[in-house]
Amino acid sequence: LYADPVPESEQPNGDAVLDRAFALLRAFSAERTELNLTELSRRSELPLSTTRRLAGQLVALGALERPAARRYTVGVRLWEIASLAPRGLGVRAAALPFMEDLYEVTHQHVLLAVREHDEAVLVERLSGHQAVDVLYRIGGRMPLVTTGVGLVLLAHAPQEIADAALVTASDPAALRRTLADIRRDEVTSFRPGPPWPVVSVAAPVRDRSGAVVAALSIVVPDGRGNPQALSTAVRAAARGISRSAREVAAHRQN
Amino acid sequence: LYADPVPESEQPNGDAVLDRAFALLRAFSAERTELNLTELSRRSELPLSTTRRLAGQLVALGALERPAARRYTVGVRLWEIASLAPRGLGVRAAALPFMEDLYEVTHQHVLLAVREHDEAVLVERLSGHQAVDVLYRIGGRMPLVTTGVGLVLLAHAPQEIADAALVTASDPAALRRTLADIRRDEVTSFRPGPPWPVVSVAAPVRDRSGAVVAALSIVVPDGRGNPQALSTAVRAAARGISRSAREVAAHRQN
Repeated sequence: LYADPVPESEQPNGDAVLDRAFALLRAFSAERTELNLTELSRRSELPLSTTRRLAGQLVALGALERPAARRYTVGVRLWEIASLAPRGLGVRAAALPFMEDLYEVTHQHVLLAVREHDEAVLVERLSGHQAVDVLYRIGGRMPLVTTGVGLVLLAHAPQEIADAALVTASDPAALRRTLADIRRDEVTSFRPGPPWPVVSVAAPVRDRSGAVVAALSIVVPDGRGNPQALSTAVRAAARGISRSAREVAAHRQN
Repeated sequence: LYADPVPESEQPNGDAVLDRAFALLRAFSAERTELNLTELSRRSELPLSTTRRLAGQLVALGALERPAARRYTVGVRLWEIASLAPRGLGVRAAALPFMEDLYEVTHQHVLLAVREHDEAVLVERLSGHQAVDVLYRIGGRMPLVTTGVGLVLLAHAPQEIADAALVTASDPAALRRTLADIRRDEVTSFRPGPPWPVVSVAAPVRDRSGAVVAALSIVVPDGRGNPQALSTAVRAAARGISRSAREVAAHRQN
């Protein structure tokens, strides 16, 4: 009451500071991994002065880096912390040897994804130089209903996520059958259709409680390879990852 | 002056909030990827009430997740942001196809690391089921002077980093020769010695300005494989990554 009023945007309020710091971090994208202060300010919708102060603090903490004067990127130290996310690199560590086996058989794309609300987040991808041209980016998001890994995750998602997907599906009955088939078969072959001449063969990865925590897939040109053999290979690899992840988890608890 | 004094630890000061939030995030480690509130509070050296409030905010932002009641882990959403770090997954994306080629030749460890001050941070690792038993963790740190990738990064580090390493080296003259050899040959074969029966063959990855931004290596059992062939393969792969990363950077700037 006795101090001058501080404008809302400049208030050093604790809660707001954290929200704003994450608004700054979220300003970066796969297309724009390097931003200057003006761009940071505009994309995070924060005043320039706030942006400058917060960016300076984030640089001091290693969450941002300055590769050149007035340029900012996400920092390796943030990446070090984030690499401890169990649903990111954790499941990936258990999965990688099995993914490499699949990669050697196909030399195409081998994908590992987890569900984040109503989308799939790609946590690992192995792709050959000559793999079919599909745009997958690690850390990137994909819809659940238009990818093999997404459908596997959707088949094992909470009811409200599945219901929302069925409401917006062009053919709800077909989607419902697909999800039931995935739960029964523990594997699916998904063809996105033209213009993508590929087939994605995907299977669930489970934790020790049996809950589905990730989905594994290979994406190959449609018509190449024996579909039955691919299904068997992906299912076996997914089971191997589930077993290996359980062993890691059990070891950590001791 | 007219309000009750708020204890320092409870002050909703903006700068302190950000520092404390990162202290919470840094409380996690490879050995402890899941913590309860008491552990978070102890490891971040923050009062329990502050820890509870900040952890709640970080969960709302997706930086933390609660896999079970009162348990916290680093969140996939933080990992998504961090995956945009150019020195993390950026260089990795350019490197992966070349790393897979090396992996197929050796079926051992293929490593990619960047320098963070006076340590190497592992940004990628491909390892077979049967690879020699060495503990590498993605996102983990390694000393510069006791690893192949570290020595390559040290050979191209700023003078003050090299000076500090030479001061603490057991044989400064030998280390100085090794670093000069690496700068001349663009490749090194490093044997850590007993009890590790391995050889690490490492080479630098450069950006378009010629600056060394990462180091690539294969780690194989000592005595297996032709040393000359391994050196040639690693050097060729590192040059391939450098070229590929430059193309990506050039593309991004358009």
